[in-house]
Amino acid sequence: MSCKKCIESPVIKLTNSPVSLCKSCFIKYFEKKVKKTISDYKLIDKNDHIVIAVSGGKDSTSLLYLIKKIVGERKDIKITALAIDEGIHNYRDESLEFLKGFCKKLKVNLKIVSYKEEFGKSLDEILKTYKGIPCSICGVLRRYLLNKKAKELKATKLATGHNLDDEAQSIMMNYCRNNMAISARLGPLTGIKKDERFIPRIKPLYFLTEKEVTSYAFLKGLMDNFKECPNSQQAYRNNIREMINDLELKIPGTKHSIVNSFLEILPLLKEEYSKDSKLIKSCLKCMEPCSQEICKTCIYIETVIKS
Amino acid sequence: MSCKKCIESPVIKLTNSPVSLCKSCFIKYFEKKVKKTISDYKLIDKNDHIVIAVSGGKDSTSLLYLIKKIVGERKDIKITALAIDEGIHNYRDESLEFLKGFCKKLKVNLKIVSYKEEFGKSLDEILKTYKGIPCSICGVLRRYLLNKKAKELKATKLATGHNLDDEAQSIMMNYCRNNMAISARLGPLTGIKKDERFIPRIKPLYFLTEKEVTSYAFLKGLMDNFKECPNSQQAYRNNIREMINDLELKIPGTKHSIVNSFLEILPLLKEEYSKDSKLIKSCLKCMEPCSQEICKTCIYIETVIKS
Repeated sequence: MSCKKCIESPVIKLTNSPVSLCKSCFIKYFEKKVKKTISDYKLIDKNDHIVIAVSGGKDSTSLLYLIKKIVGERKDIKITALAIDEGIHNYRDESLEFLKGFCKKLKVNLKIVSYKEEFGKSLDEILKTYKGIPCSICGVLRRYLLNKKAKELKATKLATGHNLDDEAQSIMMNYCRNNMAISARLGPLTGIKKDERFIPRIKPLYFLTEKEVTSYAFLKGLMDNFKECPNSQQAYRNNIREMINDLELKIPGTKHSIVNSFLEILPLLKEEYSKDSKLIKSCLKCMEPCSQEICKTCIYIETVIKS
Repeated sequence: MSCKKCIESPVIKLTNSPVSLCKSCFIKYFEKKVKKTISDYKLIDKNDHIVIAVSGGKDSTSLLYLIKKIVGERKDIKITALAIDEGIHNYRDESLEFLKGFCKKLKVNLKIVSYKEEFGKSLDEILKTYKGIPCSICGVLRRYLLNKKAKELKATKLATGHNLDDEAQSIMMNYCRNNMAISARLGPLTGIKKDERFIPRIKPLYFLTEKEVTSYAFLKGLMDNFKECPNSQQAYRNNIREMINDLELKIPGTKHSIVNSFLEILPLLKEEYSKDSKLIKSCLKCMEPCSQEICKTCIYIETVIKS
C-alpha cells in the first residue's frame, strides 16, 4: 500500500478516514489543517500579539513551531512564548532547558514565570503540606498565571496546544458530570467579548488528534523524547479518555463526531450561559476575574501556600 | 445495614445516591418518582386517551401496570394497550399470550396489530430474504405501526416504556455520531405541536434506571421471567451501553448526569431544530409523516417485503 496522495510508503493512518499518508504528505495535511482552523475560526487578527503557552510537551512545542512558521514573518504580529515553572524537580527543569534552546533557535522570546517567585513556594514545596490531588491546585495556579502574565505582556491572544482528544474529553466530562455551563467556555476560540480581564484563548490544533500531533512533533524532529508530569493524577479524565479511545477503536471518527456535535450546539450554549458571564466578579484581593468574592488562587495562597 | 427509611433489610441500592431501600420502601420510591415525572412534565392531561405500547417486557409491563394504577380510576381518561406482533416464532407468540392474560386481569383493552396483516408478511418471513440488520427494518416498521394505529385509535398520547438507561444511551449515540437534530426529538414528552400527524409520546419511566425498572417488575410480581428478542443486533447501542455502564460503575450517578445535561439543553435543541420540523412532508404513498417523498416503511414494502 502506498500513500493516498503520492507513491511513497505511508507512515500514518488517519483516524477519521481510511487514508494513509507518507511523511511528507502527512506534514502537508497537518499544516494545512492548522491553517484552515486559524482561518475558519478567525483565530488570528491583524496586529495580534500572540502569547503561546508552552510546556516543552509535544502539543505546545508543535504549536509554537507552527505559529512561528505561519505568521512569524508578518511584521504586524508579535509572538511570545510563556512557560510556567511550577518547580517540579527532575521534570520542569529539564523541559525548561529544552524550551530555552528551542525558542532561541526559532528566535521567539521566552518568558518564564515561576510559582516560587509569584507565590513564594514551588509546587514541590507546596505538595509537602498539601495532601489533595496535585492537579487540582496546580491547574488553578497555572491558569491564573497564564491569564495574568498574558495580560501583563499585553497579549491580544493566548494560544494553547489543546488537541481534538483534549477537547472531546472535556466535552464528555462536562456532559457526564452535568457541567454544561462550563462547556460553553470550550471551543477553538474562547473568551468573553469586551471583558478585558480575560485574554481570548485560541486552540489552533483543535481539529488534530493526539496521535496526529505526536506524530507531527516526532516526524518534524521537534523533540526527541518527552516526559510526563510525575504528579499527574487525573482520574476522571483518564476514565473518559479510555472510554472515548475504546469507542474510537470500534467506530473510527467518534472523536471528530463528538467535537462536531459540540460545535453545532456551542452557539446555543454561549447564548444560554452568557447570562452567567455577566456575573463574573473581580477578586477582592487580586482583582483577577472570578465567580466568588475571593478567587481560588487567593484562597489557595491563604489556606495552603502560606500555612 | 437496614433500609434508609425504615428498619427492614434492604433489597436494592439506588444508583445515584448511597441509599439502600427495603422492598416496600423501594416500591413507594419508584411509584412516587413515576408520578412526579408525570406531573413535572405534564405527561397526562384531562380527557386523554393514552395508548400504551406494550411488548410483554419488564419496561412496558411496569408502565402499563402503573398508568392503570395512577389514572385508571379517572372517568375522563381512557387507556388502551397496543402490541405489535412482528411474527417472531418462539418469542412474540409467548409474550402476546402473557399480555392477553395481564391485560384481562388489569381490565385494559389490548389491541394487537401484526406485520402479517398490515404488510402481508411476518418478520420471520421478511428475514428469509432481507439480509440486513433485523433491528433496522423492524424498528422502522414498528414505529410506523405504533404511530399509525395510535392515530386510528384516536389516542391523544402514546406512552412507551423507555427508561433512564435507554435515554442516556440514545443521547450519547446521537452525540458520538453527530446526530444532534435527532436528539431534539428525545425527552420525557415528545411530539411536534399542532402537527396532528404525530401522536405526542410520553415516557413516564424516564428517570428510573433499567436496574430499578427490572427490580420493580420482579418485586411486584408482574412477571416471572422474560426473554430477549432472538434477532436483537444493536451493535452500536451495545457499545454505548457498555461504555455508560462502565462509567456508572466508576462514577455512580453518571446516567442521571447525562440525562440532566441533556434536559438542560433540550429547549435549545428544540428551538434550533424545529426549523427542520417544518420540512416534514407526508409520504406520497401512505400519507404518514416523513422526511423524504416516500417514507422508509413504503420503501421497505416495495423493495424488501413485496420482492
